[in-house]
Amino acid sequence: MSDLGDTLTAALGAANVLDGTSDAARDLAHDEALAVGHGTPAFVVRPGSTADVVAILDAARATGTPVVARGSGTGLSGGANAPDGAVVVAFDRLTDVVIDDLDHVAVVGPGVTLEQLDAAARAHGLTYPVRPGEQSASLGGTVATNAGGMHAVRYGVTRAHVVGLEAVLADGTVVRAGGRLAKVSAGYDVVQLLTGSEGTLALITEVTVRLQPHLPVRRTVLAPFADLATTTAAVARVVGSGLAPALCEYLDDPTMDAICAAADLSLGVPDEVRARADAYLVVELVGRRADRVEEDLAELGELLTAAGAPDVYVLPEGSARRLVEAREQTFWTIKARGADEIVDVVVPRSVMADFLTAARAAGSRYGSTVLGCGHIGDGNAHLAVFQPDPDALHATLHDVLAAGVALGGAVSGEHGVGRAKAAALAELGDPGALEVVRRVRAALDPHGLLNPGCSVS
Amino acid sequence: MSDLGDTLTAALGAANVLDGTSDAARDLAHDEALAVGHGTPAFVVRPGSTADVVAILDAARATGTPVVARGSGTGLSGGANAPDGAVVVAFDRLTDVVIDDLDHVAVVGPGVTLEQLDAAARAHGLTYPVRPGEQSASLGGTVATNAGGMHAVRYGVTRAHVVGLEAVLADGTVVRAGGRLAKVSAGYDVVQLLTGSEGTLALITEVTVRLQPHLPVRRTVLAPFADLATTTAAVARVVGSGLAPALCEYLDDPTMDAICAAADLSLGVPDEVRARADAYLVVELVGRRADRVEEDLAELGELLTAAGAPDVYVLPEGSARRLVEAREQTFWTIKARGADEIVDVVVPRSVMADFLTAARAAGSRYGSTVLGCGHIGDGNAHLAVFQPDPDALHATLHDVLAAGVALGGAVSGEHGVGRAKAAALAELGDPGALEVVRRVRAALDPHGLLNPGCSVS
Repeated sequence: MSDLGDTLTAALGAANVLDGTSDAARDLAHDEALAVGHGTPAFVVRPGSTADVVAILDAARATGTPVVARGSGTGLSGGANAPDGAVVVAFDRLTDVVIDDLDHVAVVGPGVTLEQLDAAARAHGLTYPVRPGEQSASLGGTVATNAGGMHAVRYGVTRAHVVGLEAVLADGTVVRAGGRLAKVSAGYDVVQLLTGSEGTLALITEVTVRLQPHLPVRRTVLAPFADLATTTAAVARVVGSGLAPALCEYLDDPTMDAICAAADLSLGVPDEVRARADAYLVVELVGRRADRVEEDLAELGELLTAAGAPDVYVLPEGSARRLVEAREQTFWTIKARGADEIVDVVVPRSVMADFLTAARAAGSRYGSTVLGCGHIGDGNAHLAVFQPDPDALHATLHDVLAAGVALGGAVSGEHGVGRAKAAALAELGDPGALEVVRRVRAALDPHGLLNPGCSVS
Repeated sequence: MSDLGDTLTAALGAANVLDGTSDAARDLAHDEALAVGHGTPAFVVRPGSTADVVAILDAARATGTPVVARGSGTGLSGGANAPDGAVVVAFDRLTDVVIDDLDHVAVVGPGVTLEQLDAAARAHGLTYPVRPGEQSASLGGTVATNAGGMHAVRYGVTRAHVVGLEAVLADGTVVRAGGRLAKVSAGYDVVQLLTGSEGTLALITEVTVRLQPHLPVRRTVLAPFADLATTTAAVARVVGSGLAPALCEYLDDPTMDAICAAADLSLGVPDEVRARADAYLVVELVGRRADRVEEDLAELGELLTAAGAPDVYVLPEGSARRLVEAREQTFWTIKARGADEIVDVVVPRSVMADFLTAARAAGSRYGSTVLGCGHIGDGNAHLAVFQPDPDALHATLHDVLAAGVALGGAVSGEHGVGRAKAAALAELGDPGALEVVRRVRAALDPHGLLNPGCSVS
């Protein structure tokens, strides 16, 4: 074994240092990104404490070895894909959860999953409302990518919830920022700087997140629309109504077909309505009291009808839950149908119809099929691109991203840059903002040890 | 006139370059901080465009002149206090306001006041809910300090609302980050990095903020409590209830007396209740519908009574408005009564009683009087310290801040570090987090031109 291996084994114990070529290590060298390659790491290590993380970084620095952080590996942009020879740091041993029901925060290890955290919060009448679509995602990973999901329209993305972090810089400095605090204005916001930094500035060893009161009542409606422009205009009215929906999702007709088939769902929409629908909105209301949610649901129905929906379908609870679950699983459904890439783009909510039209046109240009759904309340589209030819796929993806940026959007709303979009961001991002990012990265990781190749470099 | 003066005049026109010793410039060389000195700037300049700001920074860089940004000058920490010979950049000419009622954002110049922005938003049925207590504060200033205020308990502090910025780095690079977007995960969040950076990283030339639906119904209750511990415990129940109060304020008995006297307010609380009250909570509920807010008010009343309030007083609308306005003006009331400093400290909400007890003890130690009020729903205390002796004042302030940090808090919840707390933060802040801040500052402003002496250096 190498010097690096000896040092890591001495620090963490042999059980927590896997050879990168071993079977056990193989699945830990990448995330779920469809179109991003990865190498073979030298080691996968499993720290059990902040001191272990410091020791790992000391060893990596001494040998000039790149370091890649990894949570549950559910990311979609290759942010956890290891270069050859890297040390992958898997956080699955750091799983403490402390719920503070006076300050309404949780202090958790980065390896805690969203499912574990929410279950712990629910025992106190609280909830952690971030739902990026995969509840096995780790807190550390969702903080690193600033994960979003369906509830962001009401509760905001991950960064809206993170109030404290402990992290270790490449040089071994332990940073503690924020805390069990509702607000702070004392020096730059290091918590916000590290959130969304995809393992390129520091390794996160503890996360403090805000919890919300659990709202027990939820009701869901489905509204078909004849075209995208009408759908988009309806969304502005839903979001501006003050009804504060917990989700406001868009699905195009083929995607709705696919998830209904995959989940064996029938939603009670007559065939003749389905035939005329180009898009669907799914809107969920939540609240403390059933009577109010029912009243609001009626108001929402009137609003959607006035906005052009031919009819509005209130879903029975079982169907609603299955539709939302099926929507959360869209990535897997679309992957199973052979999609070659899933793209995450965010644009101003008001131009979603223009963006989707431009994205379909980009697909036509290169013979690619572009289908999609998205968190339309947030202007966030997830597009499945079917195109087996690598060059045509690349050209399609490029034009889709460029169309989003040209409309005032960004190359990622919630999946992160990772390795999938590093080149696109370098090309399409604001040069001034990229300059800030590069300088900050160089200042905190001058030797480029942390996740090289990921995000802006 | 100096070379610097000639260059600035050539770029901005003589009308927009004030000599720093002139009467017109005198009031522009500082903010409202009580215990922070300031120097005489070389010039006060008034840019009319981003290009003007670039020209100012070019001229400052060429001559090694420090640059201090200034909004309305309503800050309380000396962040806009000019060192001798500095160029003060006053943003009162950059006052464009564009309301986008589809994306629910406003794009505004940094010189726009909160009052102007909210009025413009209200014309579209929307609101900008940040209320730091002074509606003449500028957007640029509130972004620079990450201002909070009474509504933060429901809506969050300024950083929760800022979604896009244009800014100019010390080297003249123009940075555009974020946009009319509900979410983004594409490189580090430069918007969040610059928000709260107090003019030390860049000069902000445009701000994009999220707007909220205006909620027309508001009702306010006042609840006296016998002691601090009971008050604090009640707050956790109010915040955890799901009633989502728009404000949850604490006032100690002397502060309540002072603001009632200053505003000539009688709140209908019997003398014998006042006599036994050590603290008061003021809680405001807001909503779309009067019937629901009334129901919620009844629930809130029961909750506060169960939590130990001997009685709960629903305030008539006029009294409620005047109480909230008087609470917003507490700084001026307390200043008029001779307070020597107002301190802003944030702690975990659950330890507010411990913190206030420790702060009073620190006062006793040095013969100082410490009174206060605060955004208790956020764990954010504003304490007035009466102590004419400078050494005893300094010792009191130090011990108050140290007590807050020891309880897991921070030296500023919403006023910013400025010059008032730079030394305290350097002493009491987390060394790792300070190291991150110092490296970022040096990376973006290597020659230290931007607001030297302010915040972490």
